[in-house]
Amino acid sequence: MSPFDTIIDRRGSGCSKWSRFEPDVLPMWVADMDFAVADPILHALRERLAHPVLGYGVSQAGLKARIVGWLEAQYGWRVTPDDILMLPGVVPGFNMALRTVCAPGAGVVVQTPVYPPMLKAPENGALRRIDAPLTATDEVDRDVFGAALRQAGQGAFLLCNPHNPTGRAFGREELAEMAQACLSAGVSIVSDEIHCDLLFDGRRHIPIATLAPEVAARTITLMSAGKTWNIAGLNACWAVVTDAGLRARFAATLSGVADHVNILGLIATEAALAEGGAWRDAALAYLQANRDWLAGAVAERLPGVAMRLPEATYLAWLDCRGSAAAADPHRFFLEKARVGMNSGTDFGPPGAGFVRLNFGCPRAMLEDGIGRMARALAGA
Amino acid sequence: MSPFDTIIDRRGSGCSKWSRFEPDVLPMWVADMDFAVADPILHALRERLAHPVLGYGVSQAGLKARIVGWLEAQYGWRVTPDDILMLPGVVPGFNMALRTVCAPGAGVVVQTPVYPPMLKAPENGALRRIDAPLTATDEVDRDVFGAALRQAGQGAFLLCNPHNPTGRAFGREELAEMAQACLSAGVSIVSDEIHCDLLFDGRRHIPIATLAPEVAARTITLMSAGKTWNIAGLNACWAVVTDAGLRARFAATLSGVADHVNILGLIATEAALAEGGAWRDAALAYLQANRDWLAGAVAERLPGVAMRLPEATYLAWLDCRGSAAAADPHRFFLEKARVGMNSGTDFGPPGAGFVRLNFGCPRAMLEDGIGRMARALAGA
Repeated sequence: MSPFDTIIDRRGSGCSKWSRFEPDVLPMWVADMDFAVADPILHALRERLAHPVLGYGVSQAGLKARIVGWLEAQYGWRVTPDDILMLPGVVPGFNMALRTVCAPGAGVVVQTPVYPPMLKAPENGALRRIDAPLTATDEVDRDVFGAALRQAGQGAFLLCNPHNPTGRAFGREELAEMAQACLSAGVSIVSDEIHCDLLFDGRRHIPIATLAPEVAARTITLMSAGKTWNIAGLNACWAVVTDAGLRARFAATLSGVADHVNILGLIATEAALAEGGAWRDAALAYLQANRDWLAGAVAERLPGVAMRLPEATYLAWLDCRGSAAAADPHRFFLEKARVGMNSGTDFGPPGAGFVRLNFGCPRAMLEDGIGRMARALAGA
Repeated sequence: MSPFDTIIDRRGSGCSKWSRFEPDVLPMWVADMDFAVADPILHALRERLAHPVLGYGVSQAGLKARIVGWLEAQYGWRVTPDDILMLPGVVPGFNMALRTVCAPGAGVVVQTPVYPPMLKAPENGALRRIDAPLTATDEVDRDVFGAALRQAGQGAFLLCNPHNPTGRAFGREELAEMAQACLSAGVSIVSDEIHCDLLFDGRRHIPIATLAPEVAARTITLMSAGKTWNIAGLNACWAVVTDAGLRARFAATLSGVADHVNILGLIATEAALAEGGAWRDAALAYLQANRDWLAGAVAERLPGVAMRLPEATYLAWLDCRGSAAAADPHRFFLEKARVGMNSGTDFGPPGAGFVRLNFGCPRAMLEDGIGRMARALAGA
């Protein structure tokens, strides 16, 4: 038995995932995992709390050096500690990044279906959202994307890579085409790469800023230990901005608003990068096996439901349009299966008829969820 | 011996206070205390970490109920849980509050000398800073204040009460005059009341929003357990906004930027309000004794240095203009006394010739600092 098989009761722990629905509903929605955090991280947090003073912290040099080392080891990305800014989260990060790079009222291109905070970010910043839907096979439609960029003005492309909810890990060629199109259109890139350390099948994540110096010069990249090590509740993230001028403008935008990270988030992030490698590898293997089991189970036991194999993330994007749940699959499975997923409609127009299922949980829980869904479809 | 007498080594704990200066410098600057956090708070944090999943949290109903109870018990302020928003800090809070209530380019009135993030907030939001200096006795100059409001347009008064660095706890009459002047000028109020639970001599804090319903209708009040219970590193704060329309606009401004609080900050805040009352009382008594000892020591041993007795906070605002350190007291005491305080010049023009000394520390440390400063002045 794997340690990831352990069922942990999260009710009463103040968590969002297990608080939203009624008690008999199995929650498989918001993107955190039902796994225990890696021991070195818990140890570092407990160790810090053995020291009883909890005043203001500093973004330690040690942490930034760890990030630099991680970026080089994982993606061959060489940056310096000065290129890194610590932020209280990826969502505040891209909201403020858009305000940094966009002229007032400019356009922000998003690749729908895409996770809700990305759909909301343009409006938050009084910017125009421009949808550039992915193809039916979750690929970039060159013409659609190009046309969207041409409407953006002095705007931005808000990239989600790996892509949530489709699980696409964009390849070098696709990324290069997108980057080139942005450069040609004079559009900056804000890249949320929070799932960067959860790629399957031996894939290696490619930060878009690594493609060429001229791409890096107009890219703000956002990463975090939050997804990989399941510490999303600790609100820590980092931005990599290698262009000094852009970084200064980003820092000025963040000033007074999103420029402080709580001390425990910093400590957990450092522990994750320093000592969490083995845990990450084991979690990734477990998630990949969950993914493969899930794909088989969906094909065999959920008639009319289709899923493409996610290349990354612990999210499955279930196409229910051919099933008995087609009309409103979120509601159908919530009411009839007592499984709480995310409604596809929250991810933009192409999400109608879809749900997002989170398979970052013990296998038994995943099996329970699929069993409930299969019975609901059979009874429909 | 009081538990607050215990000297705790904070070096190496990742704290800001003990990292800024060289090792032989006694730091008495940034506003956190060198005291151990209350046991119930540490216990609650450790208890939470005994649960090993650290995903997304929720702003719990229990916490908001605690806040409601605290506001009524401490200040006779009756609000509902719906009036409360949880935020990741008072500084992000007032930065975003100003952007909520001010028209583009409007003026923000600040009462100098005032702590640096308040001086920076207008610029952060592309707003105009308008200084309304306090009098030489740290009181509100009615004419100066009124004139400043008239320049603000559809702007805001950024109140700091209790006032940092002067330690003033504004009285009912002063507050009522300020509030009335704001209403007359059509200026909104953003009130940072983070030191609200650290008033001396039996004073009771008066939230400006409690003065009258029409004042509350245009006030955003910011409070936190961060100062009182010495958990500033955990980045949690709350806003009270009783007007539903204003609250909705504030929430929209915060959206995607400053609307999430880390789970441990929420837990620590709840534990502080629920079980931290006795600790607060004891800390306050200790701080008051420190204040009184300090005032005597300054008078007796620091020739030419003057301080008014702070009515609140653990900050002393030392007027060094009559001393040998007059030219640049921060540098003088840093170099000659090896005591690291905040330079008065960082608090706006009236701060020239002043330093801010933090007396939130064990008495022995305070005595050490004053001894060093006395010797430096004697040798000058």
